[in-house]
Amino acid sequence: MACSFYFTVLSLCYLPLLFRATVGSSDQQTVVVQSNHIFKIAIFADLHFGEDAWTDWGPEQDVNSLKVMSSVLENESPDFVVYLGDVITANNIPIANASLYWDQALSPTRSRGIPWASVFGNHDDAPFEWPIEWFAAPGIPPLLCPVQNSSYSILGQECSFRGTSRLELMKNEMDNNVLSLSRTGPEGLWPGISNYVLPVLSNDKPLVHLYFLDSGGGTYPEVVSTAQADWFKRVSEEINPDGRVPELVFWHIPSKAYRKVAPKFRLHKPCVGSINKEKVAAQEAEMGIMKILDKRPSVKAVFVGHNHGLDWCCPYRKLWLCFARHTGYGGYGNWARGSRILQINDHPFSISSWIRMEDGSVHSEVILS
Amino acid sequence: MACSFYFTVLSLCYLPLLFRATVGSSDQQTVVVQSNHIFKIAIFADLHFGEDAWTDWGPEQDVNSLKVMSSVLENESPDFVVYLGDVITANNIPIANASLYWDQALSPTRSRGIPWASVFGNHDDAPFEWPIEWFAAPGIPPLLCPVQNSSYSILGQECSFRGTSRLELMKNEMDNNVLSLSRTGPEGLWPGISNYVLPVLSNDKPLVHLYFLDSGGGTYPEVVSTAQADWFKRVSEEINPDGRVPELVFWHIPSKAYRKVAPKFRLHKPCVGSINKEKVAAQEAEMGIMKILDKRPSVKAVFVGHNHGLDWCCPYRKLWLCFARHTGYGGYGNWARGSRILQINDHPFSISSWIRMEDGSVHSEVILS
Repeated sequence: MACSFYFTVLSLCYLPLLFRATVGSSDQQTVVVQSNHIFKIAIFADLHFGEDAWTDWGPEQDVNSLKVMSSVLENESPDFVVYLGDVITANNIPIANASLYWDQALSPTRSRGIPWASVFGNHDDAPFEWPIEWFAAPGIPPLLCPVQNSSYSILGQECSFRGTSRLELMKNEMDNNVLSLSRTGPEGLWPGISNYVLPVLSNDKPLVHLYFLDSGGGTYPEVVSTAQADWFKRVSEEINPDGRVPELVFWHIPSKAYRKVAPKFRLHKPCVGSINKEKVAAQEAEMGIMKILDKRPSVKAVFVGHNHGLDWCCPYRKLWLCFARHTGYGGYGNWARGSRILQINDHPFSISSWIRMEDGSVHSEVILS
Repeated sequence: MACSFYFTVLSLCYLPLLFRATVGSSDQQTVVVQSNHIFKIAIFADLHFGEDAWTDWGPEQDVNSLKVMSSVLENESPDFVVYLGDVITANNIPIANASLYWDQALSPTRSRGIPWASVFGNHDDAPFEWPIEWFAAPGIPPLLCPVQNSSYSILGQECSFRGTSRLELMKNEMDNNVLSLSRTGPEGLWPGISNYVLPVLSNDKPLVHLYFLDSGGGTYPEVVSTAQADWFKRVSEEINPDGRVPELVFWHIPSKAYRKVAPKFRLHKPCVGSINKEKVAAQEAEMGIMKILDKRPSVKAVFVGHNHGLDWCCPYRKLWLCFARHTGYGGYGNWARGSRILQINDHPFSISSWIRMEDGSVHSEVILS
């Protein structure tokens, strides 16, 4: 069988839960991943499209970020992509519809026909931050504000400084992309959006469950809430009651547990990675998610972005806590760009990970199961 | 003549400037102030309507603030009111149209037929700030979101967390109130709104020019910009070329010059006031306005709010720098509430000021000219 993996997205926001592995049914988004008992994910973290959108420098960085993604996708041919938040630097985007930038970030994946899922980072729905130097002489520079039909208009017309809400961004992504498996998540978890689970099926059997959580920031505090933790617990116990299916968790901002395992100076075993250049910038509070993950043996690893100068995986009790690799040319830091790759093998089962750099090199391979 | 003061508002946002003292003309908003050679202004500062809007405590504070304003208006019978910013605590208001709260703050003045002008403070256009404790158990409390037709709806319906823009707030005020002399200000000074001048006429002659400036905060930095300073210079030189008309300036956040004159511990002469309970929370940068005001002998005083624990006037070179008095029960601090009163006498010319407290008492009288 050429297509051994059926990759199915299910609407698990509300009970009763559905769990069907149908392919191509009209009421269920379903993607068939072409692969040979290997399911491979590329994580694109902190792309920061739209950074300094009013300068020449900013759009150049976006072009560079497109090149990074293309390089990774060509070298790895993943079955799936995770956009791990800070897709855009919304606080630099002076237009009403920041989805125009968000959409650019999706384009290398979309153009290759690869399905993806995205979660929000703290920069994605931030309102515009006016640079204070614009209030001194010589004042506000002319702002070119792209509008839908590719024309431009100046400050006061199509420009807007209020940001685009998470809900708008996600709906725009979902409405315009058949390859997007992202979800807005249960309304009961709002203002957090992007809370959902994607079961991955291999030969009609569950291979792994991918959980996506919104770790906040931007318009609301940087936390994974108690309500989100409770939702994870309820859903995971419901669709994976005996814990036989391994679970991976993706969100943007490291939890405080990352601070506990962070190497003090040089990276050393049991941690695996290549850069440890800054302190963990953790969430504001721990509201219960880590306790729940830790108690659930089926949870194998958590993946976050946010810290551009960290790319390690470290064990935390029976879990792995991993950083992605800064993928975008937007955002602080000049460490070389790359992408954390995850590979889930079916026979025998294993989860491995490494980092693929823009220049094609590979490093920091680690076994996570 | 019973009405000796003609109070006229002129559209001075764009050149060529108009300067006409017509009363009741259809193309010019004009107010005749009933007074006997005395023009009296009450300053309502930091009312903070809508604070903790989802609690019982919050709306009670708004009722208390209405009582303060009513007491001051009954005791002083001013000809004019200045709303000196932080009219609302927008970062606590979970509805799309924060003008519903803004309008409550205007009501005691409007119901007495008194004209007014308003400027923005840092809290007026702030987006909603989600309390972090809402993300722990027991979660987000039920939010009652008042809508225009006095009904309520719960989170997700009429609730909104994006704030109401300065422009919307000001347009709503102007469109719905014939007594409002507020203006949105020249577009060239945006995102700062509320940049305008009101000439006050006595017996068809200019008595005083009231300048209103937006000192920012909320959605953009806390500054009076170079562009605003240039605008003030240009307009004041144009409508008052020989500096014969005294000028008073109103904005919300104290400039850095306030720090220089602030009494270190106890209040003492030449400063006049009753409380000196905190450090001056000044603007982020000085972009030129103070130099321009200082060089212009016709400018007599600047009035700001923002610091609820300060109510003094201190001389700064040839100017007076004055704080208003915290008027609202919203906002931090429990110092007794009151209002700074300004009185401009025509014959002989003088500008005096005092503070009228909620309980009717008066203190801190000072001559500012």
